[in-house]
Amino acid sequence: MKEIVKERYDTHFWQARLNDLVEHYRPFSANGRNADYIPALGEVDSKQLGICVAGPDRTVIKSGDWDIPFTLQSISKVISFVAACVTKGIPYVLDRVDVEPTGDAFNSIIRLEMHKPGKPFNPMINAGALTVASILPGESAQQKIETIYAIIEKMIGKRPVINEDVFRSEWQTAHRNRALAHYLKETGFLEAEVEETLGVYLKQCSIEGNTEDIALIGLILANDGYHPFRGEQVIPKDVAKLTKALMLTCGMYNASGKFAAFVGIPAKSGVSGGIMCAVPASLKRNEPFQHGCGIGIYGPAIDEYGNSLTGGMLLKQLAQEWDLSIF
Amino acid sequence: MKEIVKERYDTHFWQARLNDLVEHYRPFSANGRNADYIPALGEVDSKQLGICVAGPDRTVIKSGDWDIPFTLQSISKVISFVAACVTKGIPYVLDRVDVEPTGDAFNSIIRLEMHKPGKPFNPMINAGALTVASILPGESAQQKIETIYAIIEKMIGKRPVINEDVFRSEWQTAHRNRALAHYLKETGFLEAEVEETLGVYLKQCSIEGNTEDIALIGLILANDGYHPFRGEQVIPKDVAKLTKALMLTCGMYNASGKFAAFVGIPAKSGVSGGIMCAVPASLKRNEPFQHGCGIGIYGPAIDEYGNSLTGGMLLKQLAQEWDLSIF
Amino acid sequence: MKEIVKERYDTHFWQARLNDLVEHYRPFSANGRNADYIPALGEVDSKQLGICVAGPDRTVIKSGDWDIPFTLQSISKVISFVAACVTKGIPYVLDRVDVEPTGDAFNSIIRLEMHKPGKPFNPMINAGALTVASILPGESAQQKIETIYAIIEKMIGKRPVINEDVFRSEWQTAHRNRALAHYLKETGFLEAEVEETLGVYLKQCSIEGNTEDIALIGLILANDGYHPFRGEQVIPKDVAKLTKALMLTCGMYNASGKFAAFVGIPAKSGVSGGIMCAVPASLKRNEPFQHGCGIGIYGPAIDEYGNSLTGGMLLKQLAQEWDLSIF
Amino acid sequence: MKEIVKERYDTHFWQARLNDLVEHYRPFSANGRNADYIPALGEVDSKQLGICVAGPDRTVIKSGDWDIPFTLQSISKVISFVAACVTKGIPYVLDRVDVEPTGDAFNSIIRLEMHKPGKPFNPMINAGALTVASILPGESAQQKIETIYAIIEKMIGKRPVINEDVFRSEWQTAHRNRALAHYLKETGFLEAEVEETLGVYLKQCSIEGNTEDIALIGLILANDGYHPFRGEQVIPKDVAKLTKALMLTCGMYNASGKFAAFVGIPAKSGVSGGIMCAVPASLKRNEPFQHGCGIGIYGPAIDEYGNSLTGGMLLKQLAQEWDLSIF
Repeated sequence: MKEIVKERYDTHFWQARLNDLVEHYRPFSANGRNADYIPALGEVDSKQLGICVAGPDRTVIKSGDWDIPFTLQSISKVISFVAACVTKGIPYVLDRVDVEPTGDAFNSIIRLEMHKPGKPFNPMINAGALTVASILPGESAQQKIETIYAIIEKMIGKRPVINEDVFRSEWQTAHRNRALAHYLKETGFLEAEVEETLGVYLKQCSIEGNTEDIALIGLILANDGYHPFRGEQVIPKDVAKLTKALMLTCGMYNASGKFAAFVGIPAKSGVSGGIMCAVPASLKRNEPFQHGCGIGIYGPAIDEYGNSLTGGMLLKQLAQEWDLSIF
Repeated sequence: MKEIVKERYDTHFWQARLNDLVEHYRPFSANGRNADYIPALGEVDSKQLGICVAGPDRTVIKSGDWDIPFTLQSISKVISFVAACVTKGIPYVLDRVDVEPTGDAFNSIIRLEMHKPGKPFNPMINAGALTVASILPGESAQQKIETIYAIIEKMIGKRPVINEDVFRSEWQTAHRNRALAHYLKETGFLEAEVEETLGVYLKQCSIEGNTEDIALIGLILANDGYHPFRGEQVIPKDVAKLTKALMLTCGMYNASGKFAAFVGIPAKSGVSGGIMCAVPASLKRNEPFQHGCGIGIYGPAIDEYGNSLTGGMLLKQLAQEWDLSIF
Repeated sequence: MKEIVKERYDTHFWQARLNDLVEHYRPFSANGRNADYIPALGEVDSKQLGICVAGPDRTVIKSGDWDIPFTLQSISKVISFVAACVTKGIPYVLDRVDVEPTGDAFNSIIRLEMHKPGKPFNPMINAGALTVASILPGESAQQKIETIYAIIEKMIGKRPVINEDVFRSEWQTAHRNRALAHYLKETGFLEAEVEETLGVYLKQCSIEGNTEDIALIGLILANDGYHPFRGEQVIPKDVAKLTKALMLTCGMYNASGKFAAFVGIPAKSGVSGGIMCAVPASLKRNEPFQHGCGIGIYGPAIDEYGNSLTGGMLLKQLAQEWDLSIF
Repeated sequence: MKEIVKERYDTHFWQARLNDLVEHYRPFSANGRNADYIPALGEVDSKQLGICVAGPDRTVIKSGDWDIPFTLQSISKVISFVAACVTKGIPYVLDRVDVEPTGDAFNSIIRLEMHKPGKPFNPMINAGALTVASILPGESAQQKIETIYAIIEKMIGKRPVINEDVFRSEWQTAHRNRALAHYLKETGFLEAEVEETLGVYLKQCSIEGNTEDIALIGLILANDGYHPFRGEQVIPKDVAKLTKALMLTCGMYNASGKFAAFVGIPAKSGVSGGIMCAVPASLKRNEPFQHGCGIGIYGPAIDEYGNSLTGGMLLKQLAQEWDLSIF
């Protein structure tokens, strides 16, 4: 089927358009700035901008700095949530973390205290991600992180690599995350020890990937968990759908509502500048992306909300041109 | 086109299924209770349950208490938001109200005080709906409410009617809404006088409709603002898309995230028991609703979040059976 | 006794010291600014600074702009609280308003929402003062305000006068107070109608007095409610003690703790620049103020907390020189 | 001087009265309950009630379980604050912790997040006490705690002893305090390492004393830092006054306002059931306590606020009978 499709859809047109858009938006990075709470993030060239779009028929279009590796940071929250749901079941996970958006900062502790008994509001904020990390199967940080590696390997076909420099920096500056973890420990929403949980969480944040890797994961989610290249259901359909809903309502920090309103695609960003998108199939869209696609974006200059500035601009433009909105 | 479709899709099967589901879920109303802050809502028979599903090909399936009129309550927030966007333009509206979900109660005032300068987080909470009501064109409550009537008439083909009893009750007990309005007046997010704004807001909440009326409005939103029966674009496409995104992220009170996760349809509920759904077209769905539909539901027994209890159960089941999720 | 005391304590020394201090601190008004939310307060000469110290032996020392009339503003909260306790009894009042300090702004609404059932934390914040105003005896704003007038007249020997300009301005800009009052109405902590309550509250804020008037009220409180000039118990002792405790813990807005720490005198300030102090008798102090005193201060330039800037500096210095602290 | 006083004031009357009151209030412990977050506190006999009153003339009256040792818990916050002020100076300390009361729970983290930059509101809440512990001189937990031991030894004449069982239990369950400490570390209000600070803080909480010990400390504070038995100024006068102000506004958890209103004595409680009071001299009081006194109370059954239930009742009664209020 892939061959037929390749004949039918010459991607030259879209490739050229992506190239143009990347160069058009690249200079806007001057209006943002790299995350700099750890040196490794601050030192990256802010003008980097890359994109990869992957369709279920193996159509893959890449442009700009698509192949620069970056640490997944908060994008990993999606993967650990999937890993927890796959290994523990959705009800077990949702007993311990809710799926409601909040208008609070991603690292806020207020709501845990205001709303008894302090169940984290969703797995995309740090509190929820720590809870999720703590319930992964395994008796140690290493065993737990292996569950995440395993699901990534199933999706992208290779074992992920940790950026050890980033991990060490994060470990040393993780005061707020330690505060959150100890708080959750007290209220009973952390099933592992604090340091073990932080080990898992900070490692998953330090996993490296490029835009093609996250485009592929996005594609599988778009495709309801079915891996179109391997021809295998790697994530149960209900987990994939739940995950996409979470990405749409909570995936872009405190700009999630605006992103849903003006882009309309389930997406998850990280402070290192990545955005992973899962675009479900739609009747309203023309080929080649009528059957959905995954999009990976990388642009390290972030905006006031913590999302890639140029990446977000590029994505918004693309969503309009290609009718990618799910609404 | 309608005739052809009617031949092709015999709705008897779906009609029978709806009838079964309505009778199956009706008894669960015992687990909920009517809103009772005003007598008119408390006195309604809790066991009522009705549904109307309307497709763009004029397929209309109705079941149960589909024709019982109820007051729109918070469902009207969707319509007044549309009316404001249509008359003032999206940028004017979004300068005065954000589109971010919050985990706070619909009538909460906390966030206005915590986040300077106190811009309401979204138009689906009371604070935001009051701001929206205040910016509608017109020099009086009557002129402003006429803007809402006009857009409803364009959609359902008849001038809406106010339930005067409900309006009077709401007027007398609107302490919290008055508190919100005075607060917004102080912070500059109310452009009309407090009493004028409350007049508009409480009148729009008291507009009566039945499930067919709101199914039709939902259908037009699903259809990107195009009225499929009248063959006319009654709402601009960008306003329709923005509105559906808002419904998905903020439409079901503090269960919006769970509703997105497990139903996955842009929807707005009201405490009187109505739910208005806009189901966009989808490749994944089978006929007759592949091209999207509007759904109106009415069940006055509400759950802890303020959403129709039996209506929500019915909708969740339907979403699974008919693959209605947008994810 | 008074005559004897007068012979013994020549106040010339203290008078000269007060004169020096007033002129020393007057120029610091440049570091503050008048409250300006209503024109009448903003237009006053910021450099005004006056003080009156009144002892139980009729020793009265006045200096600077001691005789300029100003509106009591929040100082009136002390008097209405006393009036409510005298007419309704302490238990009735404390069932409706607590006596706990909060770190929140005087006009904050957050805590009412965070702590169910929303009982105001103390009568020195606006929410609590509105509750107090609403429970004063009387069927109208006029009857209620007369209760306050009556107790003032008992203390200072003349019927107080309202500054009508200030009252009208406050009435028109009272959005936040209206928000608070409507909120309290909803939660059941407002026993009169909203507009009636606001009428009482804004009138009491607009009562005019000078430093001698408030020094005399302070003296009576210092003296456990016993009017040393009239030789009459005008306020019950337990009400007077409770009121002084409230002034110490909550009387100086969000600087109450710092004021207790570095001045150590029960005091209540108002945004118009007044400070009313009740200095209880102390063994540690030398004559003439060993038996306590009342102090009235007026300096319209206020600091970031809403307290008279030069008045506070003058008072702090005086407290150290004369050992006025109760600790 | 002591001998003369003893001749003048026969304490038999007060001793008998204290004995009566202790037995009268002891049974009310049934309305409270021991703190039970660590086993050692929960296992203590709830009906214990003891008191020691110490005057500057060496008058010491003891009754009931006055000699049962208990861990100081939050009472130690007063001592570590004094130790920090003495060693670092008041300005250094107050740059890092404010002295404002809050209506929040003692272990609340909300206000740190709501009010940038997150300076703890006062040293009597856990956040503030952790900051204070972190700035004590010394390069290790042991060196820091020695500063506290030293000042206690100066006051009570013996080196304090740690209850190791309690310390170990607290260490293992200190999730919330760890959360607070990590939070403070992030915002820059913790000058030592987290674990070092917790070591100091939890050790100071585990110091054991009886009612006579804390009555003596209270007496010295009442006496403006002058040790009446040793005839030496052991705490500077300004530190003693500041500390008493803090005790009055913040010393009795969220009942501090009520305690100031109805008892009117600078006091600090701990969850183990201790209350330490510093009663300054007063003209209004009769001998033998006109010149002030220290009071130590112990009653492990605590009320909803965390204060000794029977201890508070006993103290309130005594304050009225003996005119102990500072107002």
